[in-house]
Parts: sequence; structure tokens; C-alpha cells
Amino acid sequence: MMRPSTRLKKWTMKDPVVAGDFGVFRVLRHKLETPAGVSKRDVHTFECRDWCNVIPVTDDGHVVMIWQYRFGTDALSLEVPGGVIDEGETPEHAALRELEEEAGYRAPAVELLSVLEPNPALQGNRIFSFVARHATATGQTKFDDLEECETVLVPIRDLPALLDSGAFSHALCAVALETFLRRERL
Amino acid sequence: MMRPSTRLKKWTMKDPVVAGDFGVFRVLRHKLETPAGVSKRDVHTFECRDWCNVIPVTDDGHVVMIWQYRFGTDALSLEVPGGVIDEGETPEHAALRELEEEAGYRAPAVELLSVLEPNPALQGNRIFSFVARHATATGQTKFDDLEECETVLVPIRDLPALLDSGAFSHALCAVALETFLRRERL
Repeated sequence: MMRPSTRLKKWTMKDPVVAGDFGVFRVLRHKLETPAGVSKRDVHTFECRDWCNVIPVTDDGHVVMIWQYRFGTDALSLEVPGGVIDEGETPEHAALRELEEEAGYRAPAVELLSVLEPNPALQGNRIFSFVARHATATGQTKFDDLEECETVLVPIRDLPALLDSGAFSHALCAVALETFLRRERL
Repeated sequence: MMRPSTRLKKWTMKDPVVAGDFGVFRVLRHKLETPAGVSKRDVHTFECRDWCNVIPVTDDGHVVMIWQYRFGTDALSLEVPGGVIDEGETPEHAALRELEEEAGYRAPAVELLSVLEPNPALQGNRIFSFVARHATATGQTKFDDLEECETVLVPIRDLPALLDSGAFSHALCAVALETFLRRERL
């Protein structure tokens, strides 16, 4: 299909300064100018590394998910494994690493499902989503200091009902699951 | 279906302080403690209002999309209308308002598609996604000072190819479109 075209021109951001450094992310302040050269008020963006997530599928028709405490929402969250892509690491490697560390599963390979922008309004990073077929348990997890996960197996046939129930609420994991269901015609 | 259960316990966040105020969002710093009472290093969260987006559908089988310059990615972005839910405003009202302001379309009503968390790892807000059927052009947009949008019509039958092309990259809009396609069995 044709990508819908636009007559809009990009605006210009310049003179970025670090307005705050909070460890896993920094806040930058930029001057902003329209294509006609009109200066606008300064804007802030939120700078962080690229992320990945992975839908691990077992040969007996389950998706490997994890429960994890998330301090953004101050709640336990049902998700698929994922995390930050480290410096010098490929997205594929990061996905397989997170699968092993968070869920205690491994897989022979990953297939790319999508590359999306988590929130182009405020941040410039990308999220790489993968499918990992033939996932098998290692029985061995390895959590970060701020992490504690519990692995659960969800039948693939239950995914539509799970998504529709509202119990699965992480948008960046939900979009990967929805794309997976569409591609697999499930 | 049964919601998969967990034995994990919630951690505790306390003593929040404002670590940075950047207008449309604030950064908060919290003390963090595990269920066993172990203190962990402080964590930062990113506080912002709830968001909404809407898939406007015309009676002749098109979705109303917008092109918009986004300074998070410093690029033009193809999206569905959406934005911040104002104080005291319902998500439904915000969706219809953004549809009119950004795209110059109106609709008689919206149907709720999903309520998701944009990123539970770092932020506590929610995004409400809607479908607005029988959308019709008003010919009149109303942009914020930092906004400039161009409306484009995309045939519904082209949505899967558009999503698979990578040309549509806003994750929070993509998840709404994917859920719409699944519910409509398209």
C-alpha cells in the first residue's frame, strides 16, 4: 500500500540542554521553531534507551508471561518479558536475555514482530517486539536489584479474552500481543 | 477466562518528592521497600495526566488520521487523533474534542475500545482508546500553539498493510488500531 503523504514540514528543535538526570532517563529542554521560522516556547523531552519485549511461545501452545511489581503504577503488572536494550547489545540479544533473566525460559531464536515508538510526543526511543517460538524452561531466573518476577503460562487461545478482560494493561506488551494474534490469524 | 493469579506481593513506595517539574509532566522521587521490608535505592517516576485517542470511522469505510510534528522523535508522525484529558473532563469528551480540534471531524458518540497503561514501568497514567463511527468533516480545526496537523483518510482495508509497513509507528495508536481490527474481525 501507499504510505499516506503529507504536505506538512518538520519543525526544528535546537540548543538542547539537560534539564534533569534521573538515572534511567534524562529530561532535555529544547528551543522550538516552526518551518516559517517562528520561535515557540521551549519543550521538554524524555530521553531513554531503546526497549524490547518478546512473546515467548511454547510448543504446547502457551505464551510465557510474567507478573512483576511496577513502580510507575505502584501495582503488580502482567506482562511479557522485556526491558532495556543495553549499550552495544542487539535488540534480538536483549530479547533473549530478558526472556532468560525474567522468565527463566530460553528459545533458539526470535522473529521481529514490530518496531514502534512508545510515545513520539515526549520521547525518541523505540521498542522492538519479537516472537520467540519453541521456548523452553531453564528453571533459572536472574533478577535485577529492583526486580522480582513470577512466570505464568497462558494458553494462546485465551489471549483475546485476556486482552478484552482488561487484566492485561501494559500497552507496549498489548500491542505486541495484538500484532501477534493478527499475523497468526488467531 | 481466568485472570492468571500471582503469589507476588506488592512492594511499597513512600515519601514522594518532586524531583523536577517540566510543565506537561513532573518527575517524582520515591523511597522503595520490598514486601520483606528491605529498603532499595530511590526510584523516579514520571507523572502526567491520562491520555485518550480515537479511531474515527467514516460511513464510506475510511479511518481519519492525522500527520503531526512530534518533538519527542523530532519527526512527522502518522497517528489517530488524541491527547491529554483535561481536568474535570471525561475521557469520552476529550476524545470527541481532540477529534474536532486536530482532525476537523465530529461524531455522534464514541465506544470504548480499551483502557491501558502507556508504560507501567515509569508512569502511572492511563490511555483510553475509543472508536467514533459515522465521523463527518466539519472543515474546521483548532490547533494548540505547539500543534499543526494535516488530516488524511485511510481505507480501513489498508490498515493491516499500513501497520505491517512500519509507516505507522506510534505504539499507543497502533494498539488501538490492532484491537479495532481484531474486534471487527478485519
